[in-house]
Amino acid sequence: MSALRALGAAPGDEVHVMVLAALPEVVRGDDLPAMLTDAAVAVGLAPGDVLAVAQKVVSKAEGRVVRLADVAPGAEARHLADETGKDPALCEVILGESRKVVRRRRSLLVCETHHGLVCANAGVDASNAPDGTVVLLPLDPDASARRIQRALSQAAGGRVGVVITDTHGRAFRRGLVNVAVGVAGFDPVMDHRGGRDGEGRMLVATDQALGDEIAAAAGMLIGKSSGRPAALVRGLVTAPAPGTARDLVRREDQDVFRARVDDDGVVM
Amino acid sequence: MSALRALGAAPGDEVHVMVLAALPEVVRGDDLPAMLTDAAVAVGLAPGDVLAVAQKVVSKAEGRVVRLADVAPGAEARHLADETGKDPALCEVILGESRKVVRRRRSLLVCETHHGLVCANAGVDASNAPDGTVVLLPLDPDASARRIQRALSQAAGGRVGVVITDTHGRAFRRGLVNVAVGVAGFDPVMDHRGGRDGEGRMLVATDQALGDEIAAAAGMLIGKSSGRPAALVRGLVTAPAPGTARDLVRREDQDVFRARVDDDGVVM
Repeated sequence: MSALRALGAAPGDEVHVMVLAALPEVVRGDDLPAMLTDAAVAVGLAPGDVLAVAQKVVSKAEGRVVRLADVAPGAEARHLADETGKDPALCEVILGESRKVVRRRRSLLVCETHHGLVCANAGVDASNAPDGTVVLLPLDPDASARRIQRALSQAAGGRVGVVITDTHGRAFRRGLVNVAVGVAGFDPVMDHRGGRDGEGRMLVATDQALGDEIAAAAGMLIGKSSGRPAALVRGLVTAPAPGTARDLVRREDQDVFRARVDDDGVVM
Repeated sequence: MSALRALGAAPGDEVHVMVLAALPEVVRGDDLPAMLTDAAVAVGLAPGDVLAVAQKVVSKAEGRVVRLADVAPGAEARHLADETGKDPALCEVILGESRKVVRRRRSLLVCETHHGLVCANAGVDASNAPDGTVVLLPLDPDASARRIQRALSQAAGGRVGVVITDTHGRAFRRGLVNVAVGVAGFDPVMDHRGGRDGEGRMLVATDQALGDEIAAAAGMLIGKSSGRPAALVRGLVTAPAPGTARDLVRREDQDVFRARVDDDGVVM
């Protein structure tokens, strides 16, 4: 098996997902990298591990919390509030986080964020936020991931990967899954092109979204109500490329589901 | 923590994903449930485990392999072949598996299968197939999952879950992930409504796609070129509801990304 093909496979044929202990309530200015490092060391942090951490605590540590009473909604936000039934101040915050509204139906609002992510309410969320406030996505989740990655790698004495996760809905499929909105320390897209299938045929166009697989695997344990926002994934072989979560974002011009189509589904 | 909120959490705060040994080449008529059971018992199959197995071997055991030379393409398939540059016989097979073509651009063909899945080429795939043949999705992947589930549960002496996985592309995001196209023995959608977040606020509309999370986690190990099509996921608490993979399929009339929209993204 070539080195390329071994990526993603476990040396011991086994991957462990270990949830970390609950953190104290995280507030602006907390040294989250240090808090996560302590929690990860407690379960034996080692080089090669990948830490998955929920966006919510990262945002709280970075002060990305907005009190809705402090927000003055503009005309566009007030219009959107009328159309959706949402709070005008919340609409102002969502619009501030959005490049554009991608889809809207009744109260459902799917936006493209300034990072290029397509998600409900541009990632602005009231769950697990103090009353009267909402939590925004980190300004630069890849930079947030790099800060955590440096602290963890130093403690581990070797390269550790980091994924910042958020819970997204999807086209075609019911239910929410965790995806990677920030990545550091490894390549979140594995390119199998040039590898061969079991019949010896060359593989084409089989980019594997490893970063999102890791986020989804961690999502089995770091649920919304669990109070435990981070998990360590052990046993993967990752590539040390300087990958970012932007690598997992499909550009609009390459996305047939944001394109105009005719009645036969043909992209125009 | 209520029983509801404990679903998905690991009693030992840890989930293990263990890849099973490679199977011999699977052909029509093979007793795949028995083959998978042997491989799972070898790593200590126990009640509560969930087996994830790649669709490809399930389809091969069920004889869902078509030799393209035996296919006579009709007029619609020949037209589609002209438009996409694909083999006319392959287009005939894809159309036979499809309710409709959802999107088409150059050689890209995204279809809705008779099961309701939205995926490239209606799941028809030439990789890991003998030369000159293509492999189709199982006719009823939930029924396939139930057959495997019965064999595994009997061997384990208790309930085991089964997920049949396929590798799908996605809207908005780059890279492929494994999703659940067949499910047996557990509820693949966890409904957190009625639960509470860390602030004590009632959770609404937070269906977690556990079946897809399991598929994605297994996808870290059962890659296309690994020759190892199955993995055991241990440590989850699943609900014994009679769930199926159809529960993970979003109905077209509820999917804003298959709806007609105006210039502002508003669903018409």
